[in-house]
Amino acid sequence: MIASGDPRPIGVFDSGVGGLTVLSELHRRLPAEATVYLGDNARTPYGPRPADEVQRFTAEGVRWLLDQDIKLLVLACNTATARALPTVREASPVPVLGVVRPGAVTAAAATRVGHVGVIATVGTVESGAYPAAIGEADPRLVVAQQACPELVPMVEAGRLEDAATERAVRGYLDELRRQDPQIDTLLLGCTHYPLLRPMIQREAGSGVAVVDSAFTTALATEDLLDALGARAPAHGDGSAPVAHRVATTGDVAAFRAVARRLFGEALPRVEAAELARV
Amino acid sequence: MIASGDPRPIGVFDSGVGGLTVLSELHRRLPAEATVYLGDNARTPYGPRPADEVQRFTAEGVRWLLDQDIKLLVLACNTATARALPTVREASPVPVLGVVRPGAVTAAAATRVGHVGVIATVGTVESGAYPAAIGEADPRLVVAQQACPELVPMVEAGRLEDAATERAVRGYLDELRRQDPQIDTLLLGCTHYPLLRPMIQREAGSGVAVVDSAFTTALATEDLLDALGARAPAHGDGSAPVAHRVATTGDVAAFRAVARRLFGEALPRVEAAELARV
Repeated sequence: MIASGDPRPIGVFDSGVGGLTVLSELHRRLPAEATVYLGDNARTPYGPRPADEVQRFTAEGVRWLLDQDIKLLVLACNTATARALPTVREASPVPVLGVVRPGAVTAAAATRVGHVGVIATVGTVESGAYPAAIGEADPRLVVAQQACPELVPMVEAGRLEDAATERAVRGYLDELRRQDPQIDTLLLGCTHYPLLRPMIQREAGSGVAVVDSAFTTALATEDLLDALGARAPAHGDGSAPVAHRVATTGDVAAFRAVARRLFGEALPRVEAAELARV
Repeated sequence: MIASGDPRPIGVFDSGVGGLTVLSELHRRLPAEATVYLGDNARTPYGPRPADEVQRFTAEGVRWLLDQDIKLLVLACNTATARALPTVREASPVPVLGVVRPGAVTAAAATRVGHVGVIATVGTVESGAYPAAIGEADPRLVVAQQACPELVPMVEAGRLEDAATERAVRGYLDELRRQDPQIDTLLLGCTHYPLLRPMIQREAGSGVAVVDSAFTTALATEDLLDALGARAPAHGDGSAPVAHRVATTGDVAAFRAVARRLFGEALPRVEAAELARV
């Protein structure tokens, strides 16, 4: 069914701009696929919110994306995945991928000594979603977590290579190594962190495999499209440009400013989205 | 949709007994899922056959499995996956997973130095399916392959821990290391090899991550069921035992003898399958 295919877009949901790392991997790996991205910036961050609120906000965002006639939904937000994936799946008429499991499975496969470290936001660490998913992949693994509250603001400020960010990264990794000196695999459990990957890899050292959940989620999306025979038909003559839309519930200019800082001019025009209450 | 679920069995196809390692991982990871296994032992091995013949034989096996009302199909055979996955997907009304991609993606994520080794049958090595899939996951990786013609007969004879098998494994790995001394990740590109995993890991050394495609394919199956909301409903009271069927196109007694040697008494009764010509 690959040849016939499904031209409808892939929907990508995040609480803000972080999921753009997943979107950018999707564009890189699946250039024939149309996409619609929704960032719920009006209510970001989701991390500190109670689970039922995250579920409600996520459901509202998902409904908006389903109204855009998507063929597949990616929850490109760790908090939304940790808190709302089962309820979204129950209600969704299209297949749903979260961002936790692909990274967790890859980290479980990548460790040699059986000790995995996870860095993430406070909310994701507290949810316990990564240790649970890694343990589900292989119950023998030892998992240590470190919350890195300074990193998201630093990334959003575009400070990807400055000394303060480096000090913060080093401090968090030192803390993680104090918890477990045997860690040989480091999972980036926040969609903002892939933008710091070169720095994180440098600070972690070459003996540590860095697993990036944006990359692994894009691979999982590719696999799912292939298993379903639902890839978009390729336009060999380049006559029909692939449509990408980016929408936010928040301030369009502010979103564009952060997104351009992180992803350059390649980003499509940003539109405003208004969500209906669930 | 997880709660509602889909009670239909997962279909597993192999040219012979090797796919039983995938089946056994599926039983371990997804105990609520019914399964139907078909081994085309009458025409095994597929490795040396021309591509169009592999496609035709696989199509015949797949049609038999589809007639058993499966919800999902796993091609648990490296040769069938390498030669026939796209054509099977085109014709199949249910989602189809192959055994090559999950292992390739995991190996790509598991290497630190970017050098991956693949051991497989002659046919799989010649198909180039693993280097292609690993390169698709990450084009910067260097891949070396080694065909191991002695291992399948040794596994089927139940010689999982004897000295001759150890010598053979060591010889193949020496050859692989001569090709590329930097390999830090070894992909078991044949469904028989997971049965030799402890020996292979010992001979490869603790610095090498061994990636087993039976394990990674079972994880991918789990992910696909979750994304589709198609897990079987769980029977909390244990009143309805999960149904497993195993069928072969070859000699039932011979199949049972090999399978029992490898998997013990837990194997279901083996039935005879007759395939219609495509």
